[in-house]
Amino acid sequence: MAILDPTTLADPVALTRALVDIQSVSGNEREIADAVEAALHATGHLAVHRLGNTVAARTDLGRPTRVVLAGHLDTVPLADNFPSTVDGDLMFGCGTSDMKAGTALALHLAATLAQSRYDVTYLFYECEEVEAARNGLNVVARERPDWLVADFALLLEPTYGAVEAGCQGTMRAAIRTQGRRAHSARSWLGINAIHTAGAALRRLDEYQPRRVTIEGCEYREGLNAVLVRGGVAGNVIPDLCEIEVNYRFAPDRSEAGAEAHLRDVFTGYQLEIVDSAPGALPGLTAEPAREFLAAVGQPASAKFGWTDVARFAALGIPALNYGPGDPNLAHTREERVEIPKIESGAAVLRAWLG
Amino acid sequence: MAILDPTTLADPVALTRALVDIQSVSGNEREIADAVEAALHATGHLAVHRLGNTVAARTDLGRPTRVVLAGHLDTVPLADNFPSTVDGDLMFGCGTSDMKAGTALALHLAATLAQSRYDVTYLFYECEEVEAARNGLNVVARERPDWLVADFALLLEPTYGAVEAGCQGTMRAAIRTQGRRAHSARSWLGINAIHTAGAALRRLDEYQPRRVTIEGCEYREGLNAVLVRGGVAGNVIPDLCEIEVNYRFAPDRSEAGAEAHLRDVFTGYQLEIVDSAPGALPGLTAEPAREFLAAVGQPASAKFGWTDVARFAALGIPALNYGPGDPNLAHTREERVEIPKIESGAAVLRAWLG
Repeated sequence: MAILDPTTLADPVALTRALVDIQSVSGNEREIADAVEAALHATGHLAVHRLGNTVAARTDLGRPTRVVLAGHLDTVPLADNFPSTVDGDLMFGCGTSDMKAGTALALHLAATLAQSRYDVTYLFYECEEVEAARNGLNVVARERPDWLVADFALLLEPTYGAVEAGCQGTMRAAIRTQGRRAHSARSWLGINAIHTAGAALRRLDEYQPRRVTIEGCEYREGLNAVLVRGGVAGNVIPDLCEIEVNYRFAPDRSEAGAEAHLRDVFTGYQLEIVDSAPGALPGLTAEPAREFLAAVGQPASAKFGWTDVARFAALGIPALNYGPGDPNLAHTREERVEIPKIESGAAVLRAWLG
Repeated sequence: MAILDPTTLADPVALTRALVDIQSVSGNEREIADAVEAALHATGHLAVHRLGNTVAARTDLGRPTRVVLAGHLDTVPLADNFPSTVDGDLMFGCGTSDMKAGTALALHLAATLAQSRYDVTYLFYECEEVEAARNGLNVVARERPDWLVADFALLLEPTYGAVEAGCQGTMRAAIRTQGRRAHSARSWLGINAIHTAGAALRRLDEYQPRRVTIEGCEYREGLNAVLVRGGVAGNVIPDLCEIEVNYRFAPDRSEAGAEAHLRDVFTGYQLEIVDSAPGALPGLTAEPAREFLAAVGQPASAKFGWTDVARFAALGIPALNYGPGDPNLAHTREERVEIPKIESGAAVLRAWLG
């Protein structure tokens, strides 16, 4: 079994590398969870709990405010990028950016900061890179919601050292047009469902996505066709065409509001919601959030993309994204993290919590 | 081996049924071709030739005019409709309409009309229902073009007893739009190829197909999307979309003219011709055509759909479609022919050729 010794835990860069070198592709997190659980137990100042391969550790200092630091333990599948390598200031390897550098910051703080300004719940969870039903944070919310009671959460997903606030919601919908089949040599006997779909695509092409500023962060929406399919055979007027759209909506809209907007845009079309996840408001006014922004020394910007902050938001907990990795390198063969970003991230967290 | 005896050959209805009851799904025409070849030999008044499972038989009466009567021997795959059944005036079974009722008329005339007004070439060919390269008429045109020398051709494809003149040309083209991939949460960084395709579909939706009257027959054109496909994943702005269109064009346009028209309609788009076949002019002014129309006693109308008459037209031979079957029943499970249509068809051909 992998051991995370005190020397490694005291150095966030060495700890990042140690975590990267424990293979933990989604579904295979037992070894890394064992190592993290043992390290947390060894601190002596944390109450440690485990659920599956998700590990939670809590201080109990009687502070009036509690914050969560959360990171997932799993990675996407390896891509000839395991174990890690280091070249100058760059550490390469699967999970360096998404998100073992961030998870290492939380574990480093958990191991080395016995007295913190707030009570802290550290959460190391499994299966973030796979379907929502297996997501460790989701499982905890369902089975042990008491672990998540807090005033603020920081999710250490890659943001390249910026503070990214809240997140967009996302909704996918299928728009279907129906026609009437006919032989294409007698096309006037049919109704072409693909032609009818053209008018729906035109609405998309002319659509002006909304921009909205919430707590100083500008959220940009987007409404896009991500799939189109139709056709029976080369000599048949098609009687069905389907367009799938993805709507990314600002967090001031609820899912119901987003659906109503889609139905408004596609008035006259048959529309079915395929899936949906709510956004998360930036939550910058919570006191721990303001303190955190002061420690970073930069204003927050809007998060584009959906992250697990929305799961905290759904529980009424304001949450921010902040991590050393570059999100554009996540899931790539060339995944890497800049070592100075790990060091500055650790300094920010210590300044905030210490 | 199946035998077509003189009694059967003398009765076009019995002959239709006998031909239907020799299974001859495309590629499996040997037995029916053997039976037809033997029957033609037995007449004693025809010179018989064979190429693969295509059989030709010629009178040589020294007439100044020669006509072709042509029918294919193959059928589409069976659909629980073999062998034939008869219910009152209806004969059911695979190939009844398309086109053994028509082929039977030609074989009946070949067997029973030793002295005809024109010299006649009877052509019974294989593989019409499959790819053009295997089409027996195509093979003859390539390898034995002398068999096809004639002043007029009658193709006994199903027309429900009407005379359908010439045929539309057909062309398929792929229109591709290109964009730039991006994550759908940051859609402003991408260019959506599906949205761009919407404008091309709009041109199709607004397209006014031409109608043109040629030799008294009105040809209606049609331009339709028959396929659309695009999309990468539910969270990716797609960088490619493809629309396949089928253009059915009147026979006063050449293939080159049809392509130029498509390029004009889709100016600004990348367009590739996928396949193409020329139309056939009605050819009603040829003397045997005029005589045939007089025998039928009804004016011709335009043929909608592509048939092998275009192969005759490409050889400079005017050709008409005329057969007892209902084209709307071709290729269906319920395929059938009305027995009185077979009888009246035989009478028309005898009046014309006798």
